[in-house]
Amino acid sequence: MIEETKEKDEVQFDEQHLRQLLENSETDNFREEFLALHPYDQAQFYEKVGPDIRQIIYQYLSPKEMADIFEAIELDDDEYKGILEEMDTTYAAQMIAAMYTDDAVDVLNELDKDQITHFLKIMDKDSAQDIKELLYYAEYTAGSIMTTEYVAIPENSTVRSAMTILRNAAPDAETIYYIFVVDDTNHLTGVISLRDLIIAEEDTLIRQIMNDRVVSINVTDDQEAVAQIMKDYNFLAVPVINSKNEMLGIITVDDIIDVIDEEASDDYSKLAGVSDMVTFDKSPFAAAKKRLPWLVVLLFLGMLTANLVDLFTGTLEKVAILAAFIPLIGGTSGNSGTQALAVAVRGIATGDVEEESKMKLLLREAITGIITGVVCGAIAFGIVFFWKHMWLLGVLVGTAICCSIVVATIAGSFIPLLMHRLKIDPAVASGPFITTLNDITSILIYLGIATMFISKLM
Amino acid sequence: MIEETKEKDEVQFDEQHLRQLLENSETDNFREEFLALHPYDQAQFYEKVGPDIRQIIYQYLSPKEMADIFEAIELDDDEYKGILEEMDTTYAAQMIAAMYTDDAVDVLNELDKDQITHFLKIMDKDSAQDIKELLYYAEYTAGSIMTTEYVAIPENSTVRSAMTILRNAAPDAETIYYIFVVDDTNHLTGVISLRDLIIAEEDTLIRQIMNDRVVSINVTDDQEAVAQIMKDYNFLAVPVINSKNEMLGIITVDDIIDVIDEEASDDYSKLAGVSDMVTFDKSPFAAAKKRLPWLVVLLFLGMLTANLVDLFTGTLEKVAILAAFIPLIGGTSGNSGTQALAVAVRGIATGDVEEESKMKLLLREAITGIITGVVCGAIAFGIVFFWKHMWLLGVLVGTAICCSIVVATIAGSFIPLLMHRLKIDPAVASGPFITTLNDITSILIYLGIATMFISKLM
Repeated sequence: MIEETKEKDEVQFDEQHLRQLLENSETDNFREEFLALHPYDQAQFYEKVGPDIRQIIYQYLSPKEMADIFEAIELDDDEYKGILEEMDTTYAAQMIAAMYTDDAVDVLNELDKDQITHFLKIMDKDSAQDIKELLYYAEYTAGSIMTTEYVAIPENSTVRSAMTILRNAAPDAETIYYIFVVDDTNHLTGVISLRDLIIAEEDTLIRQIMNDRVVSINVTDDQEAVAQIMKDYNFLAVPVINSKNEMLGIITVDDIIDVIDEEASDDYSKLAGVSDMVTFDKSPFAAAKKRLPWLVVLLFLGMLTANLVDLFTGTLEKVAILAAFIPLIGGTSGNSGTQALAVAVRGIATGDVEEESKMKLLLREAITGIITGVVCGAIAFGIVFFWKHMWLLGVLVGTAICCSIVVATIAGSFIPLLMHRLKIDPAVASGPFITTLNDITSILIYLGIATMFISKLM
Repeated sequence: MIEETKEKDEVQFDEQHLRQLLENSETDNFREEFLALHPYDQAQFYEKVGPDIRQIIYQYLSPKEMADIFEAIELDDDEYKGILEEMDTTYAAQMIAAMYTDDAVDVLNELDKDQITHFLKIMDKDSAQDIKELLYYAEYTAGSIMTTEYVAIPENSTVRSAMTILRNAAPDAETIYYIFVVDDTNHLTGVISLRDLIIAEEDTLIRQIMNDRVVSINVTDDQEAVAQIMKDYNFLAVPVINSKNEMLGIITVDDIIDVIDEEASDDYSKLAGVSDMVTFDKSPFAAAKKRLPWLVVLLFLGMLTANLVDLFTGTLEKVAILAAFIPLIGGTSGNSGTQALAVAVRGIATGDVEEESKMKLLLREAITGIITGVVCGAIAFGIVFFWKHMWLLGVLVGTAICCSIVVATIAGSFIPLLMHRLKIDPAVASGPFITTLNDITSILIYLGIATMFISKLM
């Protein structure tokens, strides 16, 4: 919901004072103070108090007033069930019905099927119908984040009749700043902004001043595509249609901001190899559960590195100093790979990559890898030579670092591009996965070259 | 700028057709088709054509029409200079003056001081004044992203007089959906939404229906704080004031979306150890320049690992198989550290961390580390034993992995929390930095324990 007018000053609210009013059963005073707050601040208070105080709140607020709070609270997904069970079932059903449909759907999606069916049965038929339509859409699609409370006017309206419709719809619509124009079979034919409406003469036909080239979203489009459109065109809302161009709902900019945040957290956690969203877990067990999958997979993958080094035991026994540089070479190439990976994943996410040919990109990454590889290799040679005074060892380490970096950089870009081509989310190629791969390749390169020149090194 | 009405249908624009119109000097036809497009699509066309075609466009479009395009184009920072130099200086100055002030400031900030001064001298005094006020603000503050084209009405207005002011201001204001109420010395005293205005009776006093509890931003606040407020309250715009509560400008939601994207890219690139934003560079040299700083720093840091392993040469010579597990232990603890780091950095960025005591967090991370460490250690023991049939070696590797993971997890959370406490951006503690630290500690732990039990291992 786009909240416009309820605002607050710097000191948000006096929590102690509000608690007292509740405990002293000062209904009117509490309602007067509490309802003057922005729903976000009401939600902040609600999240702070315990179950006993919440019971009192349910007595003091109507389902509609409670709905305003529910649209603004931020609970963990598994907390909704418990909170709803605190309320009288009819009260809860009315509250859900009073919420904007997209928010109602978000809440219901956290409950069991029986509970959902029960609530839908109790609430009024219209709200239940609206909700049922939205419940059906797959997660992360436009359909799953849209809402049905928009303003639509007939094509033959005048500015005057449009304003009348608008004034009546204003209390319940998510936004009245874009008004959508439909024909008599609900096909989307145009859009007009409130800005243009208030400037126009009252007798003007809507058809003359509306925009008939409407950017719309299909109900099955991915939410990331919706976010990109909102960002590109700076819209406050975008209409959602089906394949027959019938208007189904709208998605507003505040919901898209949540989507953008979600996607950013998602990419971030994948780069770090943490499954699921990077949310602060209250329980160490929950946190461990999110991290162990990747850790264990990479543990097995990492055993390959042990296997490989073992193969080169002969070489290592002859020139023990070689072992000292294994972590260095693996680490530096791993860092390069992670960098290349991050650039590629971010480039795909922001759409920068679409416009380029994949070959051009890989070629560019290869050159970047060569530049960084040569620079790092040269520095490594210098340090090793300065430290151990062994010219050939320096060349070996420098060359190994250079080659590993080139391979890592190419792999770091290639893998997400390949996954993108195969329609897999490229962010799944996590940082840890790339670094482990690079450990393997760098060991092969380093100890392989060393073995070839083993006689000269001894 | 919040664009509301210019929209397009699925096929964006016929590039070939537009090019032809330009090449055939069909001024009127080109203008008619081109100006019917959304500025975003106009910008897309503009970015595709070469300098020759652009010269023709400058002939065909007024500075104001060109300004609409310039507000929507996405060039690399260093490209603006060249593009502006293509234009006649007076034309360019008029174009910049016609842009919304925040966008004009963004463009000017990419030029040399002399050029900025020159443009400001040529353009009209009012625009120059508005721009000068904003140029002064430090990057990443509210002042640097705000704009001055807002609608303010006097406290003693009626709904009728407010609507009149609004209709006059509508063509030039960034948004007319929130109207700010000021006293006669420009102090911000309230806000009202257009939604509330159009529902109210025309003779109603604004003072009666406005909200006097206005959420505002101080001009020196960080842009991330602004983003958080917009997200929390679902505002379309937020007013910016100085310490005397005088109104200076507004920040609109579309600009905040850009800020959110920027910050997300920034955190992401820091986790990967890439300095600057993760933008797709057209030049491999530019890309290498962004990655080399961290790579070289970590190269030097990584030499410490080589030094350390070298200290344990005695141990390694006696039990050569030990070397095989160095990458595995370093890698697994590095992964754990990166995971912990990501969770901590993201938690600080989203504000989840503020509400907890730091000690509680570290304790929780320590327990998470112990759980993951024990699980991975046990699995590692199993694999080593199954592979090499050496019970003690298995215990050693398993114990080393367990301890390294615990240390890495605690370090991965502690370091960003410490930096946050010292007011350094915690995202600076990049993934590669953490993994390199973990290489060092894991080598110490692993080879240290091995050395203690060296006799039993031989």
